[in-house]
Amino acid sequence: MTDSIGRDLVEFAHLLADAAGDIVRPAARSRRVVHRKADASPVTEIDRAVEVRLREMIGARYPGHGVIGEEFGDDRREAEHVWVLDPVDGTKAFMAGLPVYGTLIGLARGGHPVLGIIDQPVARERWTGMDGDGTWYNGERVHAEACDRLSDALVCTTSAEYYEGDDTSALQRIVSRTRWMVYGGNCLSFAQVACGLVDVALEARVGVHDYCALVPVVTNAGGVMTGWRGEPLTLDLASGGRILASGNRAVHDAAMACLAGDV
Amino acid sequence: MTDSIGRDLVEFAHLLADAAGDIVRPAARSRRVVHRKADASPVTEIDRAVEVRLREMIGARYPGHGVIGEEFGDDRREAEHVWVLDPVDGTKAFMAGLPVYGTLIGLARGGHPVLGIIDQPVARERWTGMDGDGTWYNGERVHAEACDRLSDALVCTTSAEYYEGDDTSALQRIVSRTRWMVYGGNCLSFAQVACGLVDVALEARVGVHDYCALVPVVTNAGGVMTGWRGEPLTLDLASGGRILASGNRAVHDAAMACLAGDV
Repeated sequence: MTDSIGRDLVEFAHLLADAAGDIVRPAARSRRVVHRKADASPVTEIDRAVEVRLREMIGARYPGHGVIGEEFGDDRREAEHVWVLDPVDGTKAFMAGLPVYGTLIGLARGGHPVLGIIDQPVARERWTGMDGDGTWYNGERVHAEACDRLSDALVCTTSAEYYEGDDTSALQRIVSRTRWMVYGGNCLSFAQVACGLVDVALEARVGVHDYCALVPVVTNAGGVMTGWRGEPLTLDLASGGRILASGNRAVHDAAMACLAGDV
Repeated sequence: MTDSIGRDLVEFAHLLADAAGDIVRPAARSRRVVHRKADASPVTEIDRAVEVRLREMIGARYPGHGVIGEEFGDDRREAEHVWVLDPVDGTKAFMAGLPVYGTLIGLARGGHPVLGIIDQPVARERWTGMDGDGTWYNGERVHAEACDRLSDALVCTTSAEYYEGDDTSALQRIVSRTRWMVYGGNCLSFAQVACGLVDVALEARVGVHDYCALVPVVTNAGGVMTGWRGEPLTLDLASGGRILASGNRAVHDAAMACLAGDV
């Protein structure tokens, strides 16, 4: 099935990740000028520089493709192929020098994510998921796995502060009914679902640019990733930006029931 | 002043960190058997294997020195030189594969921390702080710095779940009066105070093994590190295990006043 994605697209996605890393890595040890966006989240000059560079590369190589980026919006969102970019997922961790941020490069075809890269440029860790060709960590095939019961699960989310209203209650149910909670992971929590280290990862209020690259990484490793109510994750924003990934179907179903308050 | 610590002690501390990394690094990508300790925190066979190895090395090289370790308690705590070890600080992050854990190697002389190493074995990042010889990151001298006002600060703590009672209220004051909160960093939050990326790092309910190595890293970079009320951090456990590090004295004083509810 890789042929149907196209080797050229996979190789180009790696070139994009390489280019992003070349900008992010030397900047990672300097105190940054930080701007506060309309949604109160931070953005640095590095986020913007990376996205400008990746958009230039895509425009030069695939002028008919669409692009959705965190910092500069949508171009040709209705195209058959759409690149979905988050130049620095986890900007606050990047500011703090904690290597749990990453560059996210997703490719959607017909609205569905089919190729994703999660790249941590300082630790030089890269996850690549491709429909039909599995998920790879630094050149090694990886596989999701999970505990049998939700009560044994190791669960990751970035911060309880990102949850509001009913979502806060839902998170509290997850906290009280699982074994270990780990905070601060950003995109790497989902990368480690693909490697079988994390049983469940979830977030609320995220955008398409936050999850499009994650879906092929999780699902092609054998994991499950949907909205909190099982909705498929496409270029149409997930309801409430609520996303959930699990190492197996049984834990995923149990986590969805817990989030919904059904158990 | 390095001579007064002794080059042999500094070189030996690096050998300890190397030995720990050789055990932790190959284990970092495998799903771990996890045990729950009496305080409900997790421990893996890797934490134990690292501490056993480091204790063997110390006993062979410096049989008269004391050792305090997270997993196996105290030996000769009253000795002039005492090694203070946390084989894996941030065990939950280690379990989840998030590279924000580290091996902590501290050396106290006369009860005062004088040498500290923070080592992240997967990202291969190492901070070394030595009384009289500054703080170094992977061979490069580093310096703390911080914003002028607490209201502009980027603040790190590992998880609000580790706070109880009045400490929870104190943390909430910090959250409401500072600019950016970043969770999940464990020892790396303090390492990045030494590099000037993090303005303030704090924790509650930590042990001597959690902070002894951090103090020389922060203070020899020009930062400030004390208990929440300014107490010096020695081998006598800080009150409530409450520790605070800041990039400069002004922000440190403001953070202490905020934690105490004085402002």
